[in-house]
Amino acid sequence: MNARSLREFEIAARERLDPAHYDYFAGGAGDEVTVGDNEAAFGRLRLVPRVLRGAAKLQTGVTLLGSRAAMPVLVAPTAFHRLADPEGERATARAAAATETIMIVSMAATVAIEEVAAAAPGAELWFQLYVQPDLAFTERIVRRAEAAGCKALVVTVDSPVLGVRERDLRNGFHDLPAQLACENLRDGGRVRPIVMWPELSWEHLGALRRMTALPIVLKGVTHPADARLALDHGVAAIMVSNHGGRQLDGVPATIDLLPDIAAEVGGAVPVLLDGGVRRGTDVLKALALGAAAVAVGRPVLWGLAADGERGVAGVLGLLRAEVEHALALCGCACVQDLEPDMVRVYGDRRLEPGMVRAYGDRRHEPGVVRRS
Amino acid sequence: MNARSLREFEIAARERLDPAHYDYFAGGAGDEVTVGDNEAAFGRLRLVPRVLRGAAKLQTGVTLLGSRAAMPVLVAPTAFHRLADPEGERATARAAAATETIMIVSMAATVAIEEVAAAAPGAELWFQLYVQPDLAFTERIVRRAEAAGCKALVVTVDSPVLGVRERDLRNGFHDLPAQLACENLRDGGRVRPIVMWPELSWEHLGALRRMTALPIVLKGVTHPADARLALDHGVAAIMVSNHGGRQLDGVPATIDLLPDIAAEVGGAVPVLLDGGVRRGTDVLKALALGAAAVAVGRPVLWGLAADGERGVAGVLGLLRAEVEHALALCGCACVQDLEPDMVRVYGDRRLEPGMVRAYGDRRHEPGVVRRS
Amino acid sequence: MNARSLREFEIAARERLDPAHYDYFAGGAGDEVTVGDNEAAFGRLRLVPRVLRGAAKLQTGVTLLGSRAAMPVLVAPTAFHRLADPEGERATARAAAATETIMIVSMAATVAIEEVAAAAPGAELWFQLYVQPDLAFTERIVRRAEAAGCKALVVTVDSPVLGVRERDLRNGFHDLPAQLACENLRDGGRVRPIVMWPELSWEHLGALRRMTALPIVLKGVTHPADARLALDHGVAAIMVSNHGGRQLDGVPATIDLLPDIAAEVGGAVPVLLDGGVRRGTDVLKALALGAAAVAVGRPVLWGLAADGERGVAGVLGLLRAEVEHALALCGCACVQDLEPDMVRVYGDRRLEPGMVRAYGDRRHEPGVVRRS
Amino acid sequence: MNARSLREFEIAARERLDPAHYDYFAGGAGDEVTVGDNEAAFGRLRLVPRVLRGAAKLQTGVTLLGSRAAMPVLVAPTAFHRLADPEGERATARAAAATETIMIVSMAATVAIEEVAAAAPGAELWFQLYVQPDLAFTERIVRRAEAAGCKALVVTVDSPVLGVRERDLRNGFHDLPAQLACENLRDGGRVRPIVMWPELSWEHLGALRRMTALPIVLKGVTHPADARLALDHGVAAIMVSNHGGRQLDGVPATIDLLPDIAAEVGGAVPVLLDGGVRRGTDVLKALALGAAAVAVGRPVLWGLAADGERGVAGVLGLLRAEVEHALALCGCACVQDLEPDMVRVYGDRRLEPGMVRAYGDRRHEPGVVRRS
Repeated sequence: MNARSLREFEIAARERLDPAHYDYFAGGAGDEVTVGDNEAAFGRLRLVPRVLRGAAKLQTGVTLLGSRAAMPVLVAPTAFHRLADPEGERATARAAAATETIMIVSMAATVAIEEVAAAAPGAELWFQLYVQPDLAFTERIVRRAEAAGCKALVVTVDSPVLGVRERDLRNGFHDLPAQLACENLRDGGRVRPIVMWPELSWEHLGALRRMTALPIVLKGVTHPADARLALDHGVAAIMVSNHGGRQLDGVPATIDLLPDIAAEVGGAVPVLLDGGVRRGTDVLKALALGAAAVAVGRPVLWGLAADGERGVAGVLGLLRAEVEHALALCGCACVQDLEPDMVRVYGDRRLEPGMVRAYGDRRHEPGVVRRS
Repeated sequence: MNARSLREFEIAARERLDPAHYDYFAGGAGDEVTVGDNEAAFGRLRLVPRVLRGAAKLQTGVTLLGSRAAMPVLVAPTAFHRLADPEGERATARAAAATETIMIVSMAATVAIEEVAAAAPGAELWFQLYVQPDLAFTERIVRRAEAAGCKALVVTVDSPVLGVRERDLRNGFHDLPAQLACENLRDGGRVRPIVMWPELSWEHLGALRRMTALPIVLKGVTHPADARLALDHGVAAIMVSNHGGRQLDGVPATIDLLPDIAAEVGGAVPVLLDGGVRRGTDVLKALALGAAAVAVGRPVLWGLAADGERGVAGVLGLLRAEVEHALALCGCACVQDLEPDMVRVYGDRRLEPGMVRAYGDRRHEPGVVRRS
Repeated sequence: MNARSLREFEIAARERLDPAHYDYFAGGAGDEVTVGDNEAAFGRLRLVPRVLRGAAKLQTGVTLLGSRAAMPVLVAPTAFHRLADPEGERATARAAAATETIMIVSMAATVAIEEVAAAAPGAELWFQLYVQPDLAFTERIVRRAEAAGCKALVVTVDSPVLGVRERDLRNGFHDLPAQLACENLRDGGRVRPIVMWPELSWEHLGALRRMTALPIVLKGVTHPADARLALDHGVAAIMVSNHGGRQLDGVPATIDLLPDIAAEVGGAVPVLLDGGVRRGTDVLKALALGAAAVAVGRPVLWGLAADGERGVAGVLGLLRAEVEHALALCGCACVQDLEPDMVRVYGDRRLEPGMVRAYGDRRHEPGVVRRS
Repeated sequence: MNARSLREFEIAARERLDPAHYDYFAGGAGDEVTVGDNEAAFGRLRLVPRVLRGAAKLQTGVTLLGSRAAMPVLVAPTAFHRLADPEGERATARAAAATETIMIVSMAATVAIEEVAAAAPGAELWFQLYVQPDLAFTERIVRRAEAAGCKALVVTVDSPVLGVRERDLRNGFHDLPAQLACENLRDGGRVRPIVMWPELSWEHLGALRRMTALPIVLKGVTHPADARLALDHGVAAIMVSNHGGRQLDGVPATIDLLPDIAAEVGGAVPVLLDGGVRRGTDVLKALALGAAAVAVGRPVLWGLAADGERGVAGVLGLLRAEVEHALALCGCACVQDLEPDMVRVYGDRRLEPGMVRAYGDRRHEPGVVRRS
C-alpha cells in the first residue's frame, strides 16, 4: 500500500484484523482517557521553525546505548505480533533491520527472541522485560536475550497489576489462540504465564543490574521523583510511558509529562518517550522538549496487520521521511539542533500588558516607513 | 448483571425505571451545568503514578468518625430508594453491610431508619438530617437515629430552599406515589413534610450539638470561609457537596472546590466530598487532593434500580475493586500514600522558558550516551 | 404559557414571529461571535454559595438613580416592539409596571414615549438616546422624555456607525413595515431617521448634561479607560454593553469586561451591564463582580412575541423568582451580600505545588479521626 | 455576485473550481492543523472598542516601503492564478489597482511579471522570490521584477523544502496543466523549475541585498530570534507567515506569533503578517498587536475563481469596507489609533482575588446611588 500518513495504516489494519484483536491493540484501560490524550496532547503543541540556517545535509541518525539507528524513533515493545501477521515479530524485526530502526522486542512476543534475532541478522534489538518473582526464571530470560544479541533491557515498571481493558472484557478476549504462545516464556517444556508482580521494588532493580551487564532502560516512569530515584539506582536510560494508556487510565499524556522529567534528569541519561507519536512533527516536539528519542507501538502493529513486513517498513520509512522533512522545515541539520524554545503551547497567552507596542507608536519617529 | 463499569449500571437502571423517576434521580437544578461539571472536572484531572514501591498488601480500609469501612467511599444520602426497588433502603443497607461500606441514610428515606438498621445488622449507618424549624420534632428524629445505631449526623446545609429541577416540573413529578412516604418524618401518626428552613444558621448548629453526642458532619460546604466557620463551630467533619447539582445550578464541581477547602481545614477534621465520582481513579484524585473519603449517590441508585441489593453490592464492589486496582497502579499500599503531587490538571502549561534543556545540549559532555 | 425558563419563551417567540423579524431580534453583527460569547461567558463562571446565614427575609429590591425596582434587572432598550406584538412598547411598559421593573424605552420605539408612559402609569421609565447631530432636535426629544416622566437618559455610545447584521442583509430586512414608525423621531409632522453620528464625542456629552437635569447613563462602555473618562465627565452611571453583539463583532462578553470596569469605577457610580443574562444566577454573577444591576433585552422581546404583556410579565416574574431563589441558595439576604469571592472561573487552576496537604499527612497526629 | 462576507466568495469559488484545484488552494501540509489554527486564533481574540472619540473622517490608507495603499491589507503572493481564472494574475492586478491595494506577485505566477504590470498600469506591485541556487538566474529574475516596476522583493524563507500536502497527493495534482507555466521562470526559451534550496542562508541574503536596491521583505519569519537576525541583516520589513499552513504543519497561528515578533522588532521595521485574515476585525487585531499591515491569500483566489477581476475587487473592497467600519466602531480615526490594550484573549482570567469590590461594598457611603 502507498500510505501518505500513519493514520492510513490504521484504517487498512482495521479492515484486516479480527475486531477483537483490533480492539486489543487499539484499546486501553478504563475510559481510554489516556489513550486519547496521548495523541491530543501533541496536537496542543506547536513548533516554531528557524529559517535561513543553510542546513543542506540532514542527519537523522542517533546512537542510543551503543545502538545505532537511522532515526530517533524506536519500535516500542508490543505483544502478540502473530495476531497481526503470521510471521509476527520476525516480520517486524526484518522491517526494523531494513530501515535501521532499533526494535524493542516484547517479552510477550509470539516468536522466541532467538528466532526474531535469527530472522533479522542486522537488526538492533533491545529486550523488554517484566521482572518475574521467580528471579532464577527472570535470569534465564535475560540470558536468552543476551545470547540473542539484545543490546539493552527495557524493564517495564508501570505494571504491578494488569490494567483493566474493558474492550477485551466485552469481546471476551482473554488468551492467545491455541496455536500461539508467548515464546519467551517457554521454560522447561512449558510456557509459563507472565506474572505482574506488585512487590517489585527498587531493590529488585539492583538485583537485576547485578544479573547482567546490559544497560537497563526503565520504562513507565511518569513522576519526576521516580526519575530522580532511577538515576540514583544507576539506570542507563528512562522511558516516559503510560503504557499507551493500557494500565492506569487518567495518567497524563506522555508529552505533557516529559518536560518535568527532562528537567529532573538534566541530561544525565537519555530520556525516551512513547505514547501518541503519529507524525514526524510529534517526534520533533518530543526531542525539542528533552527526549533523546521516541518509540512507536500501535503504528507498527497497523503496518504489520496491513501489509506484514512491508507494512512495518512502510510505517518506519514514512516516519523517517517525515522526521527528516520536518527537521529541514525547522531549519535543523540534525536532531541536536532542536531547542525547547521551538515548542509552544497552542493558544497560550502572550498578551501581557505593555508587552507589545502597536506599530503606530512609532509614527512620529523619522526614517521609519510608516502608515500614513 | 456483570457490569464492567458504573456507567453500565446507569444504562440498566434507565431501562427499568419509570422515566419520571429516572429523571428525578438523574436530573439537577437549572441548566444542569453543575450536574455535568461534577463528572467533567474529574476528567480534567490526571494521576501521576509512582513506581517500584513494592506495595504487595493493599489496604483500602478507613476509619471515619469511629466507623470502620472497607474503602474510602460512602453511600451518599439520596431520597426515595423505594422508587428504585421495592425493598428500598433496606436493600441498600444490606449491600452496604455486605461490602463493609458506610451508608448515610437520607432523612427522606422511604423506609424508617429503625427498619433500615434492623434489615442490615452489620451496617455502619450515618443519618442525614435537614434541621426542622420545629426543633422538638428535629430532636425526636435525632433520637430515632441514635436509637437505631447511627454513628453520625450528616447535616445538610445547602438547602435553605429547594432547588428548581426543571425535569421534574416537565414530568409533573411532585410527590411520592401514594403507597410510599418519608418514613423518618412520621410523627404522631402522620407523615410531616420536610421543611427547607432558610432561617437555619450557625446558632442552630450549636443547639443541635447540645442535643446529641453524635459527631456532626456538615454537608454542603463549598466556600473556604464556611469551612473555617464550621471548624470554629466544632463540627466533626466537613462534606464538600453541591447536592449533586440539584440545588444551586452553577456551583463549581466539588473536586474543583476541594483543594481550597482542604487547605483551609488543614487536616483539623476529615474532609469528605460527593459529586461526580464514577471511577476508582476519581476516588484517588479526591484523596490525593485532601479528602479523607468520598461518597457516591446516583451510582448506588442505578445499582438498586438495576438489580436491587445485588446491584448495590455490585456497584460498591466494583468501586472498591477499582480503588484497589488504581492504588496498586499508583504504587500506593494504602490511601495515605496518595500525595497532592500525584494529581495534575489536564494540559496544564509546563513549558516555562528555560525550564527544559534539550537533550542535545549535552552532546559535548563525555560519558553520556548521545545522539550522533 | 407556563414557561420554566427564559429559553422556553424564545422557543415560543420563534414560532410566532416572522422569520425575518426573529432574525432581526436574535441576530448580531458579523459572525455573531459576541452574540454567542455573551451567554457562554456566564456559563464559564461558577457561584460559590455561603451557608447557614439564616437569611429568611429576602430583599431583591434596588434603587437606581432614584428609581425604585423590585429586582436588580432592568428592561434593556430594544427597538421595534410592535414587530413582536400589536401593543408594542405599551405592553412592555405595562408588564414592567406590574412587576415593578425599570424599563429603558428605546429611542427607536414604535410607540411614542408619551403613549408608553400613559399606558403604564406606575412604570419607572428611563429613555435611551442616540444623540443626533441636529442638537436642537436632540433637545426636543430629551424634552419629550422629561415630560413623559422618564427618570434617566441612557445615552448609547457604541454606535458611531450602524453594525452590519448579515441576517438582515440576507433577509432583505431594512425598514419597518409601512404602518410602523419610530414615533419618538416624529418631528414637525414627519418621522426623521435616526442618524448614527461618528463625530459624537465627550464634548457633546457635556452639551447634553447642560441640556437636562436628568441623570445620564453611558451605555456601551467596554474599555476601562473610557469608564475613567466617563467619571471625569460626570455621568451618573455606566452601562457595560456590547449592544447585544449587534455593533462590533468580536467585542468581549460583557461579563468578561465587567471586573476591569468595576475596578476602575471603584464604586463611584453604579455600573450596569447587559448582554447574555438568561438566568437568575447570571444576575448574581454580575452583581457579585461589581454590577449594581443588569438589563435584559432579547428575553423581553421573546416574552412580548410569545404572549404580549403577559409574556413580558412572565419573563420578568420568572427572572425575579430566579434571582430570589438563587440569593436564598447563596445564603444572601439581599443583593449587597454578594461578594466577588463567590464567583470563580470554571475549571480554573487551583493545584499550586504545596498548597494542599493530603489528608494522610496527619495520620500520626493524635486525636484526629483518620484512615486506618 | 453580491457577497456579504469573504466566506461567501469561498463558497462560490468551490462551486466553480476543479475540485483538485480547489484542494490545491485550500489545503495545507500534514493534518492541516496550522491551516485551521490561523483562522481559529483570530477567533480567540477580542476587540475592546473606545467610544466618544468623535472620529468622523476615517483614514485607512498606509504607506509601506514607499508604496501607497488604500488599506493596510495586501494581496499575499499565491501561485497559479490561471487555475482560477483565464486572465490569472492580470485580473488580480487590475483589481488591486482598482482598489489601490498592494499586490505581491508570486514568482510562481502563471502570467509573466511584465505582463502583469502592463495589464494594471496603476498597480503597486511587489515581487515574491524564492532565491534560486543559480544566483545568476536569480539575478535575472530580480532584474525583470525591477524592470516591471516592482517596488519590493518579498523573499520567502520558510521553504527549504516543499511542504507535503496530502490533498494534492490524493488528487494526483503535481503539475500545472500543459497550457500553463510559471512564466517568471522562463529563461532562455525554457521554463525552469522552481528549486527549493535548503542551503539558503543569511549569507545569501547579503548577496541578494548587494544585487538590488529594492527593499527586502523577509517572509516566513516565526521565531523572535530570526526576527532579530533579520534586523541585523538589514531587511526592510518582516512578514510573519507560516505559508498559510502549507509548509510545516503545526506552526502556531501567525496572530499568536505576532506579539513576540513585534516586541523583538520594537518598531525598527514594519512587521507584516499573513494567515487566517478573513474579516476587517482580524486586520484590526493584527494592527493593534503590532503589525503595520496584513496580507490575504486564499480570499483573493476565491474572489478570482468566483468572478475574475470583479471578484477580486469585490473581496478587496469588502475587506476595506470592513476595516473602515470596524475602525469607526473602535473609535479610531486611523489605523495608528489602534493600541494593544484594545485586544484581549477570549475568556481570559480576570478574577484575581481582591481585584473587584462588589458594588454593595459602598452601601454605607453617602451620596452614592445604591441598592436598597
